[in-house]
Amino acid sequence: MSGRAEVPHPAPPAVTFADVEAAAARIAPWAHTTPVHTSRTLNTQVGAQLHFKCENLQRVGAFKFRGACNALLQLSDNARQHGVLAWSSGNHAQAMALAGRLLDVPTTLVMPADAPAAKLAATRGYGAEVVLYDRRTTVRETLGRKIAKDRGLTIIPPYDHPHVIAGQGTAALELFAAVGPLDMLIVPCGGGGLLSGCAVVARALHPECTVVGVEPETADDATRSFTTGVLHRVHEPPTIADGARTPSLGDHTFPLILNNVDQMVTVPDEALVEAMRWLWSRMKLVVEPTGALPLAAVLRGRLNIAEKRVGIIISGGNVDLATALGWFQ
Amino acid sequence: MSGRAEVPHPAPPAVTFADVEAAAARIAPWAHTTPVHTSRTLNTQVGAQLHFKCENLQRVGAFKFRGACNALLQLSDNARQHGVLAWSSGNHAQAMALAGRLLDVPTTLVMPADAPAAKLAATRGYGAEVVLYDRRTTVRETLGRKIAKDRGLTIIPPYDHPHVIAGQGTAALELFAAVGPLDMLIVPCGGGGLLSGCAVVARALHPECTVVGVEPETADDATRSFTTGVLHRVHEPPTIADGARTPSLGDHTFPLILNNVDQMVTVPDEALVEAMRWLWSRMKLVVEPTGALPLAAVLRGRLNIAEKRVGIIISGGNVDLATALGWFQ
Repeated sequence: MSGRAEVPHPAPPAVTFADVEAAAARIAPWAHTTPVHTSRTLNTQVGAQLHFKCENLQRVGAFKFRGACNALLQLSDNARQHGVLAWSSGNHAQAMALAGRLLDVPTTLVMPADAPAAKLAATRGYGAEVVLYDRRTTVRETLGRKIAKDRGLTIIPPYDHPHVIAGQGTAALELFAAVGPLDMLIVPCGGGGLLSGCAVVARALHPECTVVGVEPETADDATRSFTTGVLHRVHEPPTIADGARTPSLGDHTFPLILNNVDQMVTVPDEALVEAMRWLWSRMKLVVEPTGALPLAAVLRGRLNIAEKRVGIIISGGNVDLATALGWFQ
Repeated sequence: MSGRAEVPHPAPPAVTFADVEAAAARIAPWAHTTPVHTSRTLNTQVGAQLHFKCENLQRVGAFKFRGACNALLQLSDNARQHGVLAWSSGNHAQAMALAGRLLDVPTTLVMPADAPAAKLAATRGYGAEVVLYDRRTTVRETLGRKIAKDRGLTIIPPYDHPHVIAGQGTAALELFAAVGPLDMLIVPCGGGGLLSGCAVVARALHPECTVVGVEPETADDATRSFTTGVLHRVHEPPTIADGARTPSLGDHTFPLILNNVDQMVTVPDEALVEAMRWLWSRMKLVVEPTGALPLAAVLRGRLNIAEKRVGIIISGGNVDLATALGWFQ
């Protein structure tokens, strides 16, 4: 399935391959060049060559550090001095907090009061100011926009921003640099920042590479949006893949995905646990559910990978160990 | 503390640095060159630079593959054709099974009938013949020696063999090649194969590097042997570090450790869980309890590492996920 011929959208503020290349140079002093892992046993089992780009080994444990870093590095001097604001209960929060500390940009994070204590502590530990809100009574976007306006802060969204998207694409740039051409690139999809950035890179470097996005079955908004060409939404989908619980693609990510992605597939949460078990027990890598989406699609036979050279982005590894125990029992 | 001046033992069949170098060349086509991971957060916390050599990412998930491979590659043609035998319920079994399959050496493994089904299946999956025995009625060494004699098989012990020791030392050789000189090298100690092989390398390449072995508190036979110069034993110590439940050092490993190791320390099992939690949750690495011994010694302040460049061998990552996650609760 290809969405490339059917784009009904006006040209968006595009993210180009040159933007990703520039982002790579910009964040190089700050971000890790993460390793690419392989498993001969797994390759034999699935009949393909799988190359896992380990963004769980990125700083703060997720690819999000790339985009946060690239965005902060492009602020005007004035904006840097005033500082930035974001709302997130996940990896974007910690990415912003660390990038802010490293780049000396004051960072305010709007987080739910019932967020895991470890996450709040980690975010504060990086020196960010955390503003707590009550999920039952407060809309975080409204609160965040008000604080940003009152204090003159620049809002850095978690995915729908050209600088964030370009930053995330550097993961694919590094993967191709490490392993060369690929027949297929499989990427987790939440709000589409990682998928769209990586797709731009694949399309530019290796137009013949099939780019696939993977979502949880219960959070299939991007798959439906991709198939129909019309933006679909989900509301708090009950998946363990917290990085893919985003309500919809964004104004920037949706057109980029329509233009550069070849296929979207979904997998049930049971397949995520199965894939995580493989990654943890055989490859010794702690991967969060969202990061296991691509391997889950492979193990469930959702994709034609026979004899192919396949790239897989493991998006992150931030998961509560006690919670994970429940999944593996 | 240094044991080097007090050696009361006759010269053993020595393992030399040249033996380890030869082993490295011999096993290069078969073993992984494992990566070295670091954590800036951890370095800041402990005030030192820690370099983790990730043998949990070695084939079969442990350094044991190095020694097994090096031993099988030095068999006579006749011995190769007849095949080899080992007894092990741990990583040596799978290492022998995989090395045997790759090198086309028939492999017989004597394993307890109540070993975890997953381990038996994995060992058989590599093509080894598994002979089961009843722990209550059978002494595995007696059974193993009888089968070896009857069938003309060569016994490959898990640690007390020069070829095995030389193979394990290649882990340290790779670590120094990757990161350069170190002030300290910290290595888990069970039967002492890994520790003695790595100590030979450190002593030859960087005589000023302090070599430390770490044991569980309840399995402190090597520490007592090192301190007294007399071989001490333990009997089925109740530690979660199954790789360190070995009864004692061996005829080859004890003198090598006396000659080349500077210090032995012990840590309680709670410190192993603490270190594993760090490795799993922050560094995203699945590490087994034995592999967490060195970091446990660091986190418990057992060693003077201030401002030092420290190498740590993570010996393996083979652990039942449900069991491990139970420790973290």
